[in-house]
Amino acid sequence: MSGNSIGKLFTVTTFGESHGLALGAIIDGCPPGLELTEADLQIDLDRRKPGTSRYTTQRREDDVVKILSGVFEGKTTGTSIGLLIENTDQRSKDYSKIMDRFRPMHADYSYEQKYGIRDYRGGGRSSARETAMRVAAGAVAKKYLAEYCGVQVRGYLSQLGPIKVEKVDWDIVETNPFFCPDESKIPEMEDFMQALRKSGDSIGARLTVVASGMPVGLGEPVFDRLDADVAHALMGINAVKGVEIGAGFDCVTAKGSEHRDELTPDGFTSNNAGGVLGGISSGQDLVASIALKPTSSILVPGNTINKDGEAVEVITTGRHDPCVGIRAVPIAEAMVAIVLMDHLLRDRGQNAGVHSATPIIPASS
Amino acid sequence: MSGNSIGKLFTVTTFGESHGLALGAIIDGCPPGLELTEADLQIDLDRRKPGTSRYTTQRREDDVVKILSGVFEGKTTGTSIGLLIENTDQRSKDYSKIMDRFRPMHADYSYEQKYGIRDYRGGGRSSARETAMRVAAGAVAKKYLAEYCGVQVRGYLSQLGPIKVEKVDWDIVETNPFFCPDESKIPEMEDFMQALRKSGDSIGARLTVVASGMPVGLGEPVFDRLDADVAHALMGINAVKGVEIGAGFDCVTAKGSEHRDELTPDGFTSNNAGGVLGGISSGQDLVASIALKPTSSILVPGNTINKDGEAVEVITTGRHDPCVGIRAVPIAEAMVAIVLMDHLLRDRGQNAGVHSATPIIPASS
Amino acid sequence: MSGNSIGKLFTVTTFGESHGLALGAIIDGCPPGLELTEADLQIDLDRRKPGTSRYTTQRREDDVVKILSGVFEGKTTGTSIGLLIENTDQRSKDYSKIMDRFRPMHADYSYEQKYGIRDYRGGGRSSARETAMRVAAGAVAKKYLAEYCGVQVRGYLSQLGPIKVEKVDWDIVETNPFFCPDESKIPEMEDFMQALRKSGDSIGARLTVVASGMPVGLGEPVFDRLDADVAHALMGINAVKGVEIGAGFDCVTAKGSEHRDELTPDGFTSNNAGGVLGGISSGQDLVASIALKPTSSILVPGNTINKDGEAVEVITTGRHDPCVGIRAVPIAEAMVAIVLMDHLLRDRGQNAGVHSATPIIPASS
Amino acid sequence: MSGNSIGKLFTVTTFGESHGLALGAIIDGCPPGLELTEADLQIDLDRRKPGTSRYTTQRREDDVVKILSGVFEGKTTGTSIGLLIENTDQRSKDYSKIMDRFRPMHADYSYEQKYGIRDYRGGGRSSARETAMRVAAGAVAKKYLAEYCGVQVRGYLSQLGPIKVEKVDWDIVETNPFFCPDESKIPEMEDFMQALRKSGDSIGARLTVVASGMPVGLGEPVFDRLDADVAHALMGINAVKGVEIGAGFDCVTAKGSEHRDELTPDGFTSNNAGGVLGGISSGQDLVASIALKPTSSILVPGNTINKDGEAVEVITTGRHDPCVGIRAVPIAEAMVAIVLMDHLLRDRGQNAGVHSATPIIPASS
Repeated sequence: MSGNSIGKLFTVTTFGESHGLALGAIIDGCPPGLELTEADLQIDLDRRKPGTSRYTTQRREDDVVKILSGVFEGKTTGTSIGLLIENTDQRSKDYSKIMDRFRPMHADYSYEQKYGIRDYRGGGRSSARETAMRVAAGAVAKKYLAEYCGVQVRGYLSQLGPIKVEKVDWDIVETNPFFCPDESKIPEMEDFMQALRKSGDSIGARLTVVASGMPVGLGEPVFDRLDADVAHALMGINAVKGVEIGAGFDCVTAKGSEHRDELTPDGFTSNNAGGVLGGISSGQDLVASIALKPTSSILVPGNTINKDGEAVEVITTGRHDPCVGIRAVPIAEAMVAIVLMDHLLRDRGQNAGVHSATPIIPASS
Repeated sequence: MSGNSIGKLFTVTTFGESHGLALGAIIDGCPPGLELTEADLQIDLDRRKPGTSRYTTQRREDDVVKILSGVFEGKTTGTSIGLLIENTDQRSKDYSKIMDRFRPMHADYSYEQKYGIRDYRGGGRSSARETAMRVAAGAVAKKYLAEYCGVQVRGYLSQLGPIKVEKVDWDIVETNPFFCPDESKIPEMEDFMQALRKSGDSIGARLTVVASGMPVGLGEPVFDRLDADVAHALMGINAVKGVEIGAGFDCVTAKGSEHRDELTPDGFTSNNAGGVLGGISSGQDLVASIALKPTSSILVPGNTINKDGEAVEVITTGRHDPCVGIRAVPIAEAMVAIVLMDHLLRDRGQNAGVHSATPIIPASS
Repeated sequence: MSGNSIGKLFTVTTFGESHGLALGAIIDGCPPGLELTEADLQIDLDRRKPGTSRYTTQRREDDVVKILSGVFEGKTTGTSIGLLIENTDQRSKDYSKIMDRFRPMHADYSYEQKYGIRDYRGGGRSSARETAMRVAAGAVAKKYLAEYCGVQVRGYLSQLGPIKVEKVDWDIVETNPFFCPDESKIPEMEDFMQALRKSGDSIGARLTVVASGMPVGLGEPVFDRLDADVAHALMGINAVKGVEIGAGFDCVTAKGSEHRDELTPDGFTSNNAGGVLGGISSGQDLVASIALKPTSSILVPGNTINKDGEAVEVITTGRHDPCVGIRAVPIAEAMVAIVLMDHLLRDRGQNAGVHSATPIIPASS
Repeated sequence: MSGNSIGKLFTVTTFGESHGLALGAIIDGCPPGLELTEADLQIDLDRRKPGTSRYTTQRREDDVVKILSGVFEGKTTGTSIGLLIENTDQRSKDYSKIMDRFRPMHADYSYEQKYGIRDYRGGGRSSARETAMRVAAGAVAKKYLAEYCGVQVRGYLSQLGPIKVEKVDWDIVETNPFFCPDESKIPEMEDFMQALRKSGDSIGARLTVVASGMPVGLGEPVFDRLDADVAHALMGINAVKGVEIGAGFDCVTAKGSEHRDELTPDGFTSNNAGGVLGGISSGQDLVASIALKPTSSILVPGNTINKDGEAVEVITTGRHDPCVGIRAVPIAEAMVAIVLMDHLLRDRGQNAGVHSATPIIPASS
């Protein structure tokens, strides 16, 4: 497992298992001079935290992050930033029922086959708990992007099972447990989740992340395109099965004459491209959407096998999260922010002082 | 533009502009001992080549590839493999009409703003011509995967505008110019394309790539997951706006009790996961789909601006490709093959001699 | 400072300042199945620890390392390994004398100019304290190399100022505070250090690291040669100013007819190459030597400037290490072990199952 | 062999065997806007070229480089730069005498063992011919450094066997076939080489590279220090067995009170550090020296074994280079320039707009 790092110049490396001693991360490449305290990271960690509403898992994770290095007298020094969250919820449990069987749609089977050994307690490294560190590191990227570049990275729930949001009101997003931007849909979502919880089942979700205030020119063709790196970062989140940029899969049925975003002296006329042209940011809003599968840790019994290849039954008892997708909003924001931060530094490195800093046309979504 | 490489152990780096002297690639990390000739690469290059039917652009590109190094007496030596395709279609043209204006939905604007300079002839580096080298390099990966691991990487057109294929017959795919796997849909596609060509417009497409014969255990969590790297590689293809693994966006409306792939002693009962669990291959078929936007180089006039920010009109004359998506089938296969090859080597490096080589249950799609 | 990682497949990333809260490291890429406890790391940490004799600095650093992840039921799982050493020696000191002036031959000036900010307490990130984490990570590499490959990485002091060792007796190395392999030289070294300590001055040193039991075939030409990566790793240790492989600089005056190591059916006749041919290990012992400069933190006053560019005097008070080179033996071993481990995994990845495992001739030093 | 790339942001990847069709390189990450023609590269290629004097091998290599991409209307565009040198000297030779035996001190044995196959013609990939591409790529770096940063990278022969140069007159270096900077030593060198040629033997050499006009702040601690990366790049040149920064191995016997470079308002008082403090450039001249072993391709017969492990004799006939070190001056310059260029871009990326651009004290050698 040599894949615990992301980013080339702004590099985040993480460690930690669900029920181990601690989770941690190293951010390597944060520019010096950024004002940074633990409170800056805690905001997003709290947004991700389960147990904040009755619609997400009731497991309590304190998720208190400590900055161990790289900050001196309140500012980043340019040295590597060490982050740590100690696991406080490590009660001794009886794992005898799951240690030898593979939960369907989980990583149990593939980890066992790849490594020949796995920490089965709560999913170990494959647990969504690992994403806490992504959120903490992403918060550093978000702060730098906001303060030094005027870029704001925000996300919302665009679809919960069959319920699609119809308008995006950013003021609503943080006022409800669903990160739903459409006030009129909230009651429907509440009812839907209530029924789901009763049935012991789970549902998928669709999230959208938007970066506004984008500079023109981020992205390194031909392989490390901005959209390709965003796709990599988002598909790497637990449970994600699809990624779209801009119009996404709707472009399959679109005609060129309708789909193309025309340029005018006042800006682009539309943003089907989602803010990326030829792998490079156009100055329009970067728009990415993801599909998250329903968790299979449900109260409905299912079939599986054990390590000896014998048929056995599996059932989740205790804590149960009917829609893991909801909690992923801050995670998706963090991943996009990390990618943007990395490309900002790469662009600076290669082009500083050479390319035009002033966009020819005003950015518009 | 420091992003012209892909892969960590099996690394492909490319260069070349649409109307420059040549395209080239270096494959660094191919294991020694693989039998390899130029003919092995030419097969896929010919599948990608435009001008092979009246449904794709009539531009003639010979795309004759030369192997300049890394092969000795018919076998790879383990040293870096240099590939070259000389551009034969470099006729002097009048570029005065496009050199100062930005074609909508193309990379013209973003390249100009990022670099302050761009090779405007035929799109320069941002031209789809660049993908010829991906196909050549991918052919090496495909050959190794087939001969040493029994993995076969194949793709097909799963949707052309509104026309969805309803069955996948691999024997049909290479017998028609659409890479369509459903014989019953071919006449409809022919009519659709004919009408489109007349109207001077273009259409999007959806492609699906399947890797069968997959070993269990490829993929490096948590960031370099197999699906994340596939998403990166596919989203980095020109015109791609969406990537799905397995059930993809359909999972948004799915319930956990329906969506989960159960395990039985005889194999998995379904493959909604698309062959990846927790970022690691499960031994099932790897299934990925992509959305390709309609090209905006169409005969219908459009609005844009020039370098001075003034409103101007743009129209494509001459060669015109009504559906760029079709030609992307060998490109998408190549990208998936490169990712699989890279992960095969990474897995070998880290786990060789340690993990169990024998899957507990038989693979099944 | 995006350079806190080393290794491509076996990757070590570190953080931590001399007087910060903690030092830490993440090892990404350790194969699963290795038995590992904190005691395995502590051995080398204790060898590096200052204050173990009167010949090194009297500063007390407990250097107790904790493994926070990546090990389950006593074995590595293939997931990233988090390591932590809390700094216990953080007494509040008066830094007013050094916070604004640059100690000569230290990193104070260059850090200040590069980052515009620096943690001046004890040298911050540029302190040799940072190397504790290298030693901890190197201990993991050493254990794997020993248990899975029969490779042993050991070092010794080959020269202390003017005193050159004349024979290498491995049994002596760990019995004296100098890591001196020549028993007859120890009294001379004791006298020399005693005089040096009295004068308040410091001295340089030369260390040699030997890896025995080497497999043939490690190293990736042409840039990531084994010797090049060893040079990178060793030159990156604080105070190192020179690196030699095998005969090193003696080859300048050597004739080809004398210098070449001939091959016979019984092995090589000599090892001027230091175990590397064309960047690839030959199966002979890998031999590397380094030069470490005398520390300039001495009791003899020196001239420097402050942040305003004004001339000021600097003098080290309190703890003083007359030869920093001595303590570097376990650090140099660790760095060589990390490089070997990385190349072992890279070689496996690329060549597994292809190349001949059996050396044609027996290895010999 | 996945190691054919060097540099993180300014990345050079090469391919090509001594007697293959061509050598090539891709430079990925060159900033846009640099004026560049093939003539800029040819200058250094001609300096490296054998056959320019009777003191180096008489083999004729035309080494005519072509730029295939990345340059448009005389300027770099920011896209990847493809370079090609066709091999014109590929006469069919009788290799039956060397194809099955391993030349001592060459890479024959280690390549054979690692890869199980090797291109034995002229050493294949391990031939010094491969360095032509380093020189071509290095010339791009040198031009950028000179034009955009005022940094000049130059090298000279500091010792030829027993003959040490005693003064450095840069005006002399390019006027003699030895790159000797001390006019008074040239006759002695001529006599020495004449005698050596007659005896059929070879000799080692020591070279020194100096980068003047250095900015403060290049280098990324703790592993990717500037000196560590220089050591990596220089040790990776064929035949190099030692690397020194500044005073190098002389520091072993030096006292801290003598060795430390003091700072004054007018600059540093000495440069024992060789321009690097804590891994970061200090603004002083960067000074690095290397030891090159005598080639073992000599006319004096030697002992070796063949592929079956049997004792055989080996002798070099035909072309013979009595001191390969001499030709390495432009190669060493190229490698240092590539490292500096890479660190320049990395520093820009991470610190742009944050750190102080004005050195506190004037740089001085």
